[in-house]
Amino acid sequence: MVSGGRSRSGRLSLNAVAQAERMLKSVSAENLSDVEIKKLLQRPRIDFTSILGTVGPIVEQVRKEGDAAVRQFTERFDKVKLDDICVATQDLPWPVLPEEVARAFDVAYANITAFHEAQRGADLSVETMPGVTCRRVTRPINAVGVYVPGGTAVLPSSALMLAVPAQIAGCGTVVLATPPRPDGSITPEVLYCAKKAGVTHILKAGGAQAVAAMAWGTQTCPKVDKIFGPGNQYVTAAKMLLTNSEAMISIDMPAGPSEVLVIADEGANPGHVAADLLSQAEHGPDSQVVLLALPGVDLDAVQHAVQKQCDELPRNETARKALSHSCVVQVRDREEAARISNSYAPEHLIINVDDPESWLPLLDNAGSIFMGRWTPESVGDYASGTNHVLPTYGYARMYSGVSLDSFTKKMTVQSLSWEGLQVLGPHVAKMAEVEGLEAHRRAVTLRLEQSS
Amino acid sequence: MVSGGRSRSGRLSLNAVAQAERMLKSVSAENLSDVEIKKLLQRPRIDFTSILGTVGPIVEQVRKEGDAAVRQFTERFDKVKLDDICVATQDLPWPVLPEEVARAFDVAYANITAFHEAQRGADLSVETMPGVTCRRVTRPINAVGVYVPGGTAVLPSSALMLAVPAQIAGCGTVVLATPPRPDGSITPEVLYCAKKAGVTHILKAGGAQAVAAMAWGTQTCPKVDKIFGPGNQYVTAAKMLLTNSEAMISIDMPAGPSEVLVIADEGANPGHVAADLLSQAEHGPDSQVVLLALPGVDLDAVQHAVQKQCDELPRNETARKALSHSCVVQVRDREEAARISNSYAPEHLIINVDDPESWLPLLDNAGSIFMGRWTPESVGDYASGTNHVLPTYGYARMYSGVSLDSFTKKMTVQSLSWEGLQVLGPHVAKMAEVEGLEAHRRAVTLRLEQSS
Repeated sequence: MVSGGRSRSGRLSLNAVAQAERMLKSVSAENLSDVEIKKLLQRPRIDFTSILGTVGPIVEQVRKEGDAAVRQFTERFDKVKLDDICVATQDLPWPVLPEEVARAFDVAYANITAFHEAQRGADLSVETMPGVTCRRVTRPINAVGVYVPGGTAVLPSSALMLAVPAQIAGCGTVVLATPPRPDGSITPEVLYCAKKAGVTHILKAGGAQAVAAMAWGTQTCPKVDKIFGPGNQYVTAAKMLLTNSEAMISIDMPAGPSEVLVIADEGANPGHVAADLLSQAEHGPDSQVVLLALPGVDLDAVQHAVQKQCDELPRNETARKALSHSCVVQVRDREEAARISNSYAPEHLIINVDDPESWLPLLDNAGSIFMGRWTPESVGDYASGTNHVLPTYGYARMYSGVSLDSFTKKMTVQSLSWEGLQVLGPHVAKMAEVEGLEAHRRAVTLRLEQSS
Repeated sequence: MVSGGRSRSGRLSLNAVAQAERMLKSVSAENLSDVEIKKLLQRPRIDFTSILGTVGPIVEQVRKEGDAAVRQFTERFDKVKLDDICVATQDLPWPVLPEEVARAFDVAYANITAFHEAQRGADLSVETMPGVTCRRVTRPINAVGVYVPGGTAVLPSSALMLAVPAQIAGCGTVVLATPPRPDGSITPEVLYCAKKAGVTHILKAGGAQAVAAMAWGTQTCPKVDKIFGPGNQYVTAAKMLLTNSEAMISIDMPAGPSEVLVIADEGANPGHVAADLLSQAEHGPDSQVVLLALPGVDLDAVQHAVQKQCDELPRNETARKALSHSCVVQVRDREEAARISNSYAPEHLIINVDDPESWLPLLDNAGSIFMGRWTPESVGDYASGTNHVLPTYGYARMYSGVSLDSFTKKMTVQSLSWEGLQVLGPHVAKMAEVEGLEAHRRAVTLRLEQSS
């Protein structure tokens, strides 16, 4: 306990009542050094060593045995016996969804498409010297695999977030892997999104075995070039392992537990702040939520709302565990808040303040930012148009979230005219000489010696 | 031997003379299946398992002991005893270079700057629905490390290729690591490029110890967020190991031996083709070069030129080894050539043909493309303006070469007005309900219940 307790009179003071309800530990930044704040906001550590020990043999068996191994692991882990594990999406009928549900996914599809379509960059062309033209052209990655988690929370929204940009990029093969339901079928909402977004193959498998099947390819599952998507620690470990293997794949980014950092000023509604913190906390017991409270925030009201709303959640046990390693930091001003947020590098950053635009230039490291009073994280999770596959665990310092770019690669192209080579060639020959690469020099001088 | 030999008369036929000189094995695509061609063009395999065994303890010792460990490994591997291993670039005086050399690097600097400056993208803003605005904003990665190889070939050009985009991106800390010369100094051309391109720190170290110092940070070397650059197998293994570690870094891309694929038609000068093949072969014994020869190419003339030019190279032994696992494939037409090239996914692709523009739409997988008669690979290696840090080993299927983007990350930003939430909110609430995430739903409905 930071403060409060029984008053001398022996009665429980009001302060103590509030304190007893505090589910989030609360500290003041002015009493802490940068190092202490960093320590306070340390994320739950993930130990991949033991997980890799479990995942390694699974990945290896799928490489060797293909479909048979995937079938076996699916029976063992998902308790489902399947004949066909990988099916062409077009062979599956459109699922029937309640109209309101279909409409919601349609809206999300339209918004995600609009925002990712706008990310298409024009090809670039620069004449760096007379007769020396450098260009950059974009091509889709030929085959991609997207992982859509199942299990305790089925996430059709992730199917849209990953398949829509693949569709816009023009990837020829899009495999969607997701664990089957007990009857061997695919969750209807996932299938609806997959069909809408042009997924070519559905792999009814989850965990490391699904990732391995896409990375190596099996008798029925196409080998892909890049694997995307959130997943549990086994999925993440398999992605990490395979990206350093002979499977020749890349991955979107390392994935850790989800997290949110909320910055609130005195005008922020405590109930909204609490709801935003909880919407992250319900994701998993290892999620982390952080509130940076500017002067004037009624922290007791926030704590009270967190308590009350948490009790009402079906996933309140999960949320409670996440809250146990989360906290409130009272900050003195905008600069301090921005500094702490940039150092933490949150996946989701909610700026529940009066003038969010004035904050934006100060913010450096975040996956996605939610501005003002009316932009809860949920809108980005589902349907605003931005992608919800974002860097977690501090990786927002150097990774971007998934975007159209993630499904393409860019090739540079240079074209020299004979005149261009006359201008540039001698300098290239000199640099090759400095580096002692004679054949590099000759590839230029042999051409220079020849008249056009 | 594919053909030729002694004629019946006992005299060495002309064909056999040519054959004896063939340094590149030659096959015809029409006799081979796709799988056979793939096998033929298989790259020399890299076995990282044993290298990781060497690199692991080095990385760990640097993590624990910092500068002391780096100093110790530098003494052991580079035979140099250093006091200061990491110095501020501004504290080092400008090196004096021959005017012609300085001029060459100045030209390269200007061209690389022009092409990478042009890669700056405008921030994006899309109103996906009335009152729902999604944006994307770019921020520099705060601290980056760039590795510039030393040893048998010192590569100041790599310093430019990596430091210039970091400078344009606005990275606050740029550490350049390069092995010191025997007297403990830095190669003057590397220092010249480093100062010109705004490198903030120079780490006089090479190999796994240099990568580890930048990844963990030491007493004198700043910790970086992302590590770039080519290097030998120890450098690559250290990057691979650290990117999956608690050091929290990312890397540019996996690196393998350098390679070129040349497509030549009958108008291609055999001497130029040979020079281009050799300019890649001289890089290292594990480099690979491939020639796809269209009908009409004088293959004997090419083989003869390869032989003759190779003999004259100072690095001819290296080139000879590289040629031993390289080959010529005779192709029937443009489509076959493009198909084989796309399947191989070369780092460098030279299109030495009459009408290269008509080829470009067919080409999917390549790091950088060199168009026409007057564009040898050397120009891109040094000074055309494109980046020479490119995906090797087939990774051009899913990686782009280094660009300005590599030194930045993009954050998405969404702003909903009260009206925007009224329009979008109900759909978000419905999707959250489908996914069973009640707190996500409430973060929306609590706000919807409130009048604006």
